Amino acid sequence: MSLDAVLARIDTDLPHALDRLLDLLRIPSISTDPAFKGDCDRAADWLVADLKTLGFDASKRETPGHPMVVAHYGTDLPGPHLLFYGHYDVQPVDPLNLWDRYPFDPQIEETPAGRVIRGRGSSDDKGQLMTFLEALRAYRAEHGRLPCRLTIFLEGEEESGSPSLIPFMQDNADELRADVALICDTGLFESKTPAIVTMLRGLLGEEITIHGPNKDLHSGMYGGLAMNPIRVLSRIIAGLHDDTGRITVPGFYDQVPELSDDMRAQWQGLAFDHARFLGDVGLSVPAGEADRTPLEMIWSRPTCEVNGIWGGYAGDGFKTVLPAMAHAKISFRLVGTQDPFAIREAFRAYVTAQLPVDCRVDFKGHGNSPAGQMSVANKAFEPARAALTEEWGIAAAYVGCGGSIPIAGYFKTYLDMDAMLIGFGKDDDQIHSPNEKYDVQSFHKGIRSWARILERLAV
Amino acid sequence: MSLDAVLARIDTDLPHALDRLLDLLRIPSISTDPAFKGDCDRAADWLVADLKTLGFDASKRETPGHPMVVAHYGTDLPGPHLLFYGHYDVQPVDPLNLWDRYPFDPQIEETPAGRVIRGRGSSDDKGQLMTFLEALRAYRAEHGRLPCRLTIFLEGEEESGSPSLIPFMQDNADELRADVALICDTGLFESKTPAIVTMLRGLLGEEITIHGPNKDLHSGMYGGLAMNPIRVLSRIIAGLHDDTGRITVPGFYDQVPELSDDMRAQWQGLAFDHARFLGDVGLSVPAGEADRTPLEMIWSRPTCEVNGIWGGYAGDGFKTVLPAMAHAKISFRLVGTQDPFAIREAFRAYVTAQLPVDCRVDFKGHGNSPAGQMSVANKAFEPARAALTEEWGIAAAYVGCGGSIPIAGYFKTYLDMDAMLIGFGKDDDQIHSPNEKYDVQSFHKGIRSWARILERLAV
Repeated sequence: MSLDAVLARIDTDLPHALDRLLDLLRIPSISTDPAFKGDCDRAADWLVADLKTLGFDASKRETPGHPMVVAHYGTDLPGPHLLFYGHYDVQPVDPLNLWDRYPFDPQIEETPAGRVIRGRGSSDDKGQLMTFLEALRAYRAEHGRLPCRLTIFLEGEEESGSPSLIPFMQDNADELRADVALICDTGLFESKTPAIVTMLRGLLGEEITIHGPNKDLHSGMYGGLAMNPIRVLSRIIAGLHDDTGRITVPGFYDQVPELSDDMRAQWQGLAFDHARFLGDVGLSVPAGEADRTPLEMIWSRPTCEVNGIWGGYAGDGFKTVLPAMAHAKISFRLVGTQDPFAIREAFRAYVTAQLPVDCRVDFKGHGNSPAGQMSVANKAFEPARAALTEEWGIAAAYVGCGGSIPIAGYFKTYLDMDAMLIGFGKDDDQIHSPNEKYDVQSFHKGIRSWARILERLAV
Repeated sequence: MSLDAVLARIDTDLPHALDRLLDLLRIPSISTDPAFKGDCDRAADWLVADLKTLGFDASKRETPGHPMVVAHYGTDLPGPHLLFYGHYDVQPVDPLNLWDRYPFDPQIEETPAGRVIRGRGSSDDKGQLMTFLEALRAYRAEHGRLPCRLTIFLEGEEESGSPSLIPFMQDNADELRADVALICDTGLFESKTPAIVTMLRGLLGEEITIHGPNKDLHSGMYGGLAMNPIRVLSRIIAGLHDDTGRITVPGFYDQVPELSDDMRAQWQGLAFDHARFLGDVGLSVPAGEADRTPLEMIWSRPTCEVNGIWGGYAGDGFKTVLPAMAHAKISFRLVGTQDPFAIREAFRAYVTAQLPVDCRVDFKGHGNSPAGQMSVANKAFEPARAALTEEWGIAAAYVGCGGSIPIAGYFKTYLDMDAMLIGFGKDDDQIHSPNEKYDVQSFHKGIRSWARILERLAV
């Protein structure tokens, strides 16, 4: 039977598939840092070339930022039209000294837990997007063609707020619209249960700069008399959460829905082991809202995190300076129908209201996206769940995701398409951290999973 | 009369004195940054060579850190023995982009307020220490000798906590002991009134690192569930002052004396224009303890300042990281008999007591020195005050100083000597800030002031 042949082909071709992935991982396509613009371009070129070998009409499409990669197959074919989305850009690598190897010199490593692909982007998202392309490669090798009409849509700005994404989707709506979007940028639940994400948190990024004195001052000459902007910033940040872990920005929770009894029951059924989840990163106690379960804290509740803070002297030794400025990068994870723009205004008003005399604040907006709710009614969901259950031998589940994958919501908003989020990452992949990895098992069974899903959706 | 001849010589030689200072300012002797160790050495060599031209037996004396410069003249002469102290090291220059010129390419600039010497170290302390050497140079040119027995003691670690100073003073006590120490590292009161500082604040520097997760985390995957160390650090810093500006560390004020009625009356007589003092740096409201006068806030009250804070991502763009660590450099200005070591223990206990479960803290101690109280009973003070009044045409005053000049206290503690702090800096010299300058007037009249003081003290 043809599926078995495709799966067998995937198994025997795995070493070559790994070589192709390592080749892509060697390109340092960090989208948030302008210094790596040329490398983002090279990653896009690499993917265009690979897609052409699969029979796609593929091209690199310029944007004001990093290019998109768009590829089409079988535009005149009847039957289902599937779109696949992934992103080829990666997170920055600092602090570099915490990496055990250079992040863009990837390698297959033997570990007590099995073989892993080590390197920045191995899990987020180059390794995941290649699972789909490798499934197509195996299908094509067996059948001489691809299973149905396909559109591949790869982005290079996902880790930097996707500034070009919405305009590009709007300008190319007819070209991109398909029956369903398949997105591979998520993980297995608790590193073992195959999952389809149906709930995603949104994201709002803000950068604030508190200005005090008009220049750096000597803390001996002015200390005690002049207002210190680091002290002001610290008070504002300290006040963002109350003692129960609840966020204090007025109106912040207005659009936050309660979990449905049905979903609450499903999640309880997952028996989430939060002690292990926290223990993996050296923690033991849930630090969110006191009256919420750990899964709610990361899936269905909004957050406010300080992602970066800086001001004054941070070099060797000591400098008795009373600095002119203090800065912070702060992000909010959004749920339900929280409006990123309304939250931004509420946050800015909250900060401004707390400024003492003699201080002023500058705001800089970074990415923003609403939360996403997938429609499990789409006829692709149940067959995909069955295919995943078959490959992994564990009942696949509908789950939430604490992270923000704005693209999922955009397909609905701008192209009126449902999106199905299926991924094979594990909790210990260390994405966005030093020593990122992707299990060879995730990669291998991920490819096999897509082969099974395509078999069911292509008819 | 010989003093007039010396003063005339100072006036005519001023252009050459300025050239000598610019030459010294070109050496980037930043003591806190190991990268500049060789330059600190060069500055010491430059001073040894210059002191030899003045007839001193001068030498560079190695220490575990940067070298000391020690020079002697007339060791067998009867009569008074004066010691002069200054420091040849300078503050770091960051943020470099805020300088109008390269900080170590000094120049004489014409400004609406008069001619200034622009460059790092021009005021703190190279320009000030050279006022004394230039006064000696003029005296020697007129008399063929120096006015009395002299010892010059120049340090290269004043801006980095003076780690080698106490051991050096202890090991060389007999060599360094004199009748009085003259220290030129302070300023004119309100940029116009010549002043002798009789009260100095001490300093305690602490660096703290809050550890949370054992690695940087993805704020989507863990945000809301994992404790963020930046949030913990911000709460601790925000809690260091209460709403009245009072420091909350238990026992912090135990050794803080009230100002004597006599000194309080003197300070009221100075009619300090704090509105102008704050206005010069873009501020308007005293931010210290609500019930204290502005002069108390900077001269006789202790402080707690955050000199630096950093953690997470501070680069271009945005990174949704939940960081493993957050750091701050915090310093305390001390008064009265506050014990730096007792305050350090109280601060560390205070921080540790506020750590939530799952967080730990590392402490690193930086410089520490007690507050200093000069003895105006020493017979050098009144003649010096008269000489200053004569040169400046304004009654010289005994004042306090918010900064920490540990050396003043060390002379009393380790050599049983009184110290007299006389300096000519101005409030707008921007020491420790970008675009540091020293008025040519400060330099010129400073040299003349020392000539008058030496005339009175050498007899």
